[in-house]
Amino acid sequence: MRLLMKFGGTSVADAESVGRTVAIIGRHHVAGDEVAVVISAQRGVTDQLITIAGEVASGTSTDGIDPLIQSLRLRHVRVLDAVAPDFAEDAATVIEERLDALRNILQAVYNLRELTPRSRDYIITFGERLNAPVVAAALRQKGMNAPVLDGGEAGILTTDHHGEAIALPESEEMISGRIVPMLSRGVPVIMGFMGYTREGIVTTLGRSGSDYSAVLIGCGIDADEIWIWTDVDGIMTTDPRLVPSARVLQSVSYLEIMELSFFGAKVMHPRSIEPAMRKGTPVRVKNTFNPSFEGTRIVRHAEKDRRVVKALTYIGNVATVAICGAQMIGRPGVARAIFSALADHEINVMMISQGSSEANISLVIEESQVGCAVEALQPLVSQGVVREVTANRDVAAVAAVGAGMAGAKGTGGRIFSALGRGGINVMMISQGSSEANISFVVSQEDGPKAVQTLHEEYRLSEESDD
Amino acid sequence: MRLLMKFGGTSVADAESVGRTVAIIGRHHVAGDEVAVVISAQRGVTDQLITIAGEVASGTSTDGIDPLIQSLRLRHVRVLDAVAPDFAEDAATVIEERLDALRNILQAVYNLRELTPRSRDYIITFGERLNAPVVAAALRQKGMNAPVLDGGEAGILTTDHHGEAIALPESEEMISGRIVPMLSRGVPVIMGFMGYTREGIVTTLGRSGSDYSAVLIGCGIDADEIWIWTDVDGIMTTDPRLVPSARVLQSVSYLEIMELSFFGAKVMHPRSIEPAMRKGTPVRVKNTFNPSFEGTRIVRHAEKDRRVVKALTYIGNVATVAICGAQMIGRPGVARAIFSALADHEINVMMISQGSSEANISLVIEESQVGCAVEALQPLVSQGVVREVTANRDVAAVAAVGAGMAGAKGTGGRIFSALGRGGINVMMISQGSSEANISFVVSQEDGPKAVQTLHEEYRLSEESDD
Amino acid sequence: MRLLMKFGGTSVADAESVGRTVAIIGRHHVAGDEVAVVISAQRGVTDQLITIAGEVASGTSTDGIDPLIQSLRLRHVRVLDAVAPDFAEDAATVIEERLDALRNILQAVYNLRELTPRSRDYIITFGERLNAPVVAAALRQKGMNAPVLDGGEAGILTTDHHGEAIALPESEEMISGRIVPMLSRGVPVIMGFMGYTREGIVTTLGRSGSDYSAVLIGCGIDADEIWIWTDVDGIMTTDPRLVPSARVLQSVSYLEIMELSFFGAKVMHPRSIEPAMRKGTPVRVKNTFNPSFEGTRIVRHAEKDRRVVKALTYIGNVATVAICGAQMIGRPGVARAIFSALADHEINVMMISQGSSEANISLVIEESQVGCAVEALQPLVSQGVVREVTANRDVAAVAAVGAGMAGAKGTGGRIFSALGRGGINVMMISQGSSEANISFVVSQEDGPKAVQTLHEEYRLSEESDD
Amino acid sequence: MRLLMKFGGTSVADAESVGRTVAIIGRHHVAGDEVAVVISAQRGVTDQLITIAGEVASGTSTDGIDPLIQSLRLRHVRVLDAVAPDFAEDAATVIEERLDALRNILQAVYNLRELTPRSRDYIITFGERLNAPVVAAALRQKGMNAPVLDGGEAGILTTDHHGEAIALPESEEMISGRIVPMLSRGVPVIMGFMGYTREGIVTTLGRSGSDYSAVLIGCGIDADEIWIWTDVDGIMTTDPRLVPSARVLQSVSYLEIMELSFFGAKVMHPRSIEPAMRKGTPVRVKNTFNPSFEGTRIVRHAEKDRRVVKALTYIGNVATVAICGAQMIGRPGVARAIFSALADHEINVMMISQGSSEANISLVIEESQVGCAVEALQPLVSQGVVREVTANRDVAAVAAVGAGMAGAKGTGGRIFSALGRGGINVMMISQGSSEANISFVVSQEDGPKAVQTLHEEYRLSEESDD
Repeated sequence: MRLLMKFGGTSVADAESVGRTVAIIGRHHVAGDEVAVVISAQRGVTDQLITIAGEVASGTSTDGIDPLIQSLRLRHVRVLDAVAPDFAEDAATVIEERLDALRNILQAVYNLRELTPRSRDYIITFGERLNAPVVAAALRQKGMNAPVLDGGEAGILTTDHHGEAIALPESEEMISGRIVPMLSRGVPVIMGFMGYTREGIVTTLGRSGSDYSAVLIGCGIDADEIWIWTDVDGIMTTDPRLVPSARVLQSVSYLEIMELSFFGAKVMHPRSIEPAMRKGTPVRVKNTFNPSFEGTRIVRHAEKDRRVVKALTYIGNVATVAICGAQMIGRPGVARAIFSALADHEINVMMISQGSSEANISLVIEESQVGCAVEALQPLVSQGVVREVTANRDVAAVAAVGAGMAGAKGTGGRIFSALGRGGINVMMISQGSSEANISFVVSQEDGPKAVQTLHEEYRLSEESDD
Repeated sequence: MRLLMKFGGTSVADAESVGRTVAIIGRHHVAGDEVAVVISAQRGVTDQLITIAGEVASGTSTDGIDPLIQSLRLRHVRVLDAVAPDFAEDAATVIEERLDALRNILQAVYNLRELTPRSRDYIITFGERLNAPVVAAALRQKGMNAPVLDGGEAGILTTDHHGEAIALPESEEMISGRIVPMLSRGVPVIMGFMGYTREGIVTTLGRSGSDYSAVLIGCGIDADEIWIWTDVDGIMTTDPRLVPSARVLQSVSYLEIMELSFFGAKVMHPRSIEPAMRKGTPVRVKNTFNPSFEGTRIVRHAEKDRRVVKALTYIGNVATVAICGAQMIGRPGVARAIFSALADHEINVMMISQGSSEANISLVIEESQVGCAVEALQPLVSQGVVREVTANRDVAAVAAVGAGMAGAKGTGGRIFSALGRGGINVMMISQGSSEANISFVVSQEDGPKAVQTLHEEYRLSEESDD
Repeated sequence: MRLLMKFGGTSVADAESVGRTVAIIGRHHVAGDEVAVVISAQRGVTDQLITIAGEVASGTSTDGIDPLIQSLRLRHVRVLDAVAPDFAEDAATVIEERLDALRNILQAVYNLRELTPRSRDYIITFGERLNAPVVAAALRQKGMNAPVLDGGEAGILTTDHHGEAIALPESEEMISGRIVPMLSRGVPVIMGFMGYTREGIVTTLGRSGSDYSAVLIGCGIDADEIWIWTDVDGIMTTDPRLVPSARVLQSVSYLEIMELSFFGAKVMHPRSIEPAMRKGTPVRVKNTFNPSFEGTRIVRHAEKDRRVVKALTYIGNVATVAICGAQMIGRPGVARAIFSALADHEINVMMISQGSSEANISLVIEESQVGCAVEALQPLVSQGVVREVTANRDVAAVAAVGAGMAGAKGTGGRIFSALGRGGINVMMISQGSSEANISFVVSQEDGPKAVQTLHEEYRLSEESDD
Repeated sequence: MRLLMKFGGTSVADAESVGRTVAIIGRHHVAGDEVAVVISAQRGVTDQLITIAGEVASGTSTDGIDPLIQSLRLRHVRVLDAVAPDFAEDAATVIEERLDALRNILQAVYNLRELTPRSRDYIITFGERLNAPVVAAALRQKGMNAPVLDGGEAGILTTDHHGEAIALPESEEMISGRIVPMLSRGVPVIMGFMGYTREGIVTTLGRSGSDYSAVLIGCGIDADEIWIWTDVDGIMTTDPRLVPSARVLQSVSYLEIMELSFFGAKVMHPRSIEPAMRKGTPVRVKNTFNPSFEGTRIVRHAEKDRRVVKALTYIGNVATVAICGAQMIGRPGVARAIFSALADHEINVMMISQGSSEANISLVIEESQVGCAVEALQPLVSQGVVREVTANRDVAAVAAVGAGMAGAKGTGGRIFSALGRGGINVMMISQGSSEANISFVVSQEDGPKAVQTLHEEYRLSEESDD
């Protein structure tokens, strides 16, 4: 079996976790699997780099550089000595060179007081640059051949949107050409989170960039499965803090994982899943602390289940914003004006609902952005395009997710009847035409109860509905 | 009682209808009510003016001008002779002068081949300009003093958005100053559909402009009620072609009329209601053929009724468009990009639904615009912002409206359970935070049945739910 | 011989002048010449039209319309009765129709308070529209067949720059196809100053538009010569008010007439000459009061004369503006910034001089625009691009013109030595690489003397230098 | 006496020249003068830095960095050891630190493949950064106290136009506050060519930046004179290669030096002179190889001389471009269009001449830019704004300069008569209203002869005209 395994920050954070990680890889290697590995920075390192970059650019002093370099040296060398005593020296040399390069760029940024998007991206990839030699040395210590590549060397070509680059289609072939030949000879260790532009400039892949790297590499090498190693057992029916009997799902579809994003984001960002979805490569979420557990498989069609609702997500601390006015009716430009105003203020809209009257567009946004949103929309009121903008702060958004909802009759009835029986008032509803998700808004107070009521209604704690 | 009465095109179309109209006004005048009247053009005249304006501007020939002038002369003089024999001569002179002015401007447009927004607005107000003297003469024939004013003279000041002007706030005081003193001395006859800019340039008020004029004048004179005379008995629980037992509603709230707009637009466009809503002036929809019937009263708070759903609207020939893609998640600019692309193509969006995953925005648009919408959104797919855009054509949108839904528990459950029992699959749902409207999409085939099912469920044919 | 004759406003202003004009045309017609005629409006009429257009557009009243119509009727009918008693009735009918059309458009502009570039152009062509029938009737009275055409009908197609339209290349063939066939049958009378866009919209040709029309038509019909009839004998060596012995030049080249423009503009605007220059058609400036005099011929190569200076122009009431600063050196954008600032303020620059140091650009502009120019350039001083801007008001510009100056050695020396001997200080000099013109600036006081000195130096009052 | 002395690249290039420089400074120091010194980079070093910056940014390799660092170390240390044996060690340490910083920034630019305007400016100041410690050490060796400051530390605050920054007015006070107190205690050594923005970011001052620094510092410390040390004796009447008897001028005015810029640029760029001109500080151009020679003094009013022409400049390899067309007459926008087109193509215009006809604008540009200029102007021909654009390549521009020309009668006559007698055809002339400069264009062949003729005419080789 050909596998791509991705290990996040907590799986490569110290001697113990690197040990566990290497043991997992080793087992599969010995068993004859072909394995490529994508690794993250040690937990917290990327944040440290972001902080120091800002500090030196603002030019107050370079005092932070040396302590940081020293602490990074210590962290990585300590793990190295523990997990790869026989290969520590070579790896330490590489780490030292990279620390020099890091110090160099930080000093240059300080001298110029100028942090360009390009130099920022370069700096914040050093977490992976320092960690990859450690993991590779640990694999060598266990007898594996472990070439190290950065994201661009591995074949990830991206747009030049620094900080949020998107992979270009030709990456797949590049990755295949570069990594596949290595698989028969060892375990390539690839730095996640980064790529190159066509001109060879280093970029970073943004939020969940390491997962995104993993899926890109996994698809590029035509892996049988892509394994995302985490510290949880998989994707659950809902947040166990809300419903203690919540259960790990054996499989979910790509579509469902998209819809579960908010809740699921803690496990895997939907953006990262898209390349796998296009190619149909299964992605498995697994737990390094419980490696024998199957985890959750993300596939095109998940196992059948008579229950149309499969999982529930919950978002608290949100607010609704209602935009009303008869002048909005029949005017194509009003929605543009509303969403332009919000985008100009960087306000992210989680839910949108406009009923057929068009006299009213309701939005759900983060509670902290309510003041900003209302202000952003005020000019539309002054211009007479909109009559009024009102906000409601103490609300929560709940989504019931399940691909089986599509075409199933009475789902909405069952959901809203259950809530009605539970005495829960539903303030806003949105079901898109994918029919894999019904989202609704209730008061903050009713939120947890709404999740519990539906978890119960659909008996989601039970393995099967039969 | 002080009343503003508005008579639309069918109420002032021929000798018979003008007779009915004058009788109504006379009755109230005699009864001591203060009445101001807003009148429309004779049915069809505005369309004729729009057509001839386009013809002469394109410059092929002036052949259409004389026949049009002649036909307009005949239409108006014929009514005039029938309803106001003793005052026909004076009014005919005024009509003749206006026909001269109309011929003049049409000839000038032909000579220049240039129809500016300003000259178009001027031309298309001639329907009202010709009709007002006729109605006024008929009132004089019945012994009433009937001064005639165009919209601007009556005090309606507007923005300079020719063809779609919006009234400026100072209109209210202007109207009051000009019209109120006339009420004790007679029945002012005001041409609907038009106003002046601050510079005195004639503008038109767009769709349902006469209703809008009526509400503006009614609020300006501080009327006790504004009566919109039509040829139906009022606003109904639903379209009687779908549900023969549909019933006229005694009262609806401003909010409900907004939400009923699509269905209700045939009676009254919500845009016109807004000034009344701001001031709290009741608006009554009445039937000239059945003047003793109370009609439907539109007020701030409609009568209480235990039924939370009060009326149902139905829109066929629509389509859903689903826009999906994980890159959309957490990016404020994507909604802007979508609605800008649609606005650039003049595509009007009737329903919007975005669930909490943000990976999916669903829209309802007119079926005829689907091709255009999909094409408009294609660049977002090419740019990788959106993964795919899919459309579903054979669908219908239904809305259940009722201010009582706000805060009522289980409404959604009751609605969707009833539909589920009826074997109807719900494809998309949207309930905004006003909670006065739940909109949903079903297959075209299921549409009428959905309306019937809910009309039955809420026993809307019965006067009261008790 | 095929001739195009153009008669300006003073040649078609009253019965007497029309009589003279018709006599001239008749003589050539009888002599067997093929003649086409371009006529202007009666003197002053176009200005009256410009005034009334502005008045009605501003919307104060329509009081001016009727008196204007009446006065135009009288002016034209009076001439008509005098010069074409037998054909007056038909022509009067045409005039009446056109007066109706003029009243119509003025009334429409008043009603709309809107004067578009298109309607303005249409209105200001009525001077020619009213005058052409008069001249044609006078020709008929003398037994000539005289079809009347407006500029567009004659084949002048233009750009759509209303008020300043430029003829399109295809005009030449259009004119040829339309006018040439008429020449064997009579004397076509063509309204100057106007054309059509490709869409058939009326345009006007701007300053000296009638001369421009004449040259276009003359080139279009492949005329042997184009005769511009005026009230002076031709183009002179200098302004006779400055030098009483100034002499009419027998011939000048196209290039020289361009350079003489300021002085010569009273006779013929260079812009009008360009089509003739392209084709090589000779243009002759003649005097209606002295028709037997040869006038001045404008041709590609004027007669040889040993005197390299042929004529002198003088412009008083001008000012110099000096723009200095070392930051200007070697910066391509500074000249752009200067001329953009001036163009934004509609300041026309008559002379420019920048010596090789680039630290200084000197301009000559109209004295009345000095304040505006200095203000327009102030931002460049504030921005540090320019060190200072200084103006000198009491100056005059003189130009010595002669195609023979090109390649002649010592011309500058002779000119400036003569001026030096005359005690005249030269403040600014500009000689372009055409070498047909040396322009210089002297104090206002020295201006006339400078002209007289050079007129003397080159013995310009004498027929020949031999 | 308080003096600011500036030593250019050739005066601080090797042990010998530094020796001479230090001897000069020492002599004045001993004599009791207060002296501040501005120094350049060693000859050629700035160009080396520009080259390496481009190389590493293009990212081919870092191979050039080490050899450059090594060569810079050798150059500076060798001089240091020779001129300051007792102070070499300390200075060498400073040089070593700066070489480290230089290597650091070059490496960072290579790593990022990104050379921002800010990083470029920082890099190209290293020539001065390395050289200042050497000169200071040499001064210390001679017993002088010699604090070293970079341009910003010395008080030069600039705009943020990297590569071409302009000093801000507040610099003068800053410089005074920082440098004046040092003068009583020693000889401050200030790095030329650079400043700081208000935010403390390093900028460079562009062409002739060290001279500009010198004048800024000289004015800031209220120097009695600013001495610009070069390798020539001063400013000459003309280029001695053209006229072997050319003579050094004892004094010239600020205005004359501006006008002499092209020729004079080899000595001093006019841009650098402007701050001195504003304050009236005399600037003296002197020769390090001939320090006892007075040099040329640049002052507000130069010594009187009956000769109105004082110096002659010559520019070969230029071309004229003539832009003609009658449509240009009276249109303010045409000059804008022309100079915008040229600026967009980065074409620098050395001479402009537009005579009073406006039908013709003639320009002088570098011969190598003719093709580009003609192409840049082609769109104006296509649009019909301009009739034709013609170029003449084999020409030379000559300027006769002298402040005494202002108001002198017959200067132009004398110049152009002399040229005429010499058989030289003048193709274009430009004299701006400063009247301190008459520029003209002759054929390339006639160029040198024109200069010689006028040098002779005005007996410029003779000390005085008396």
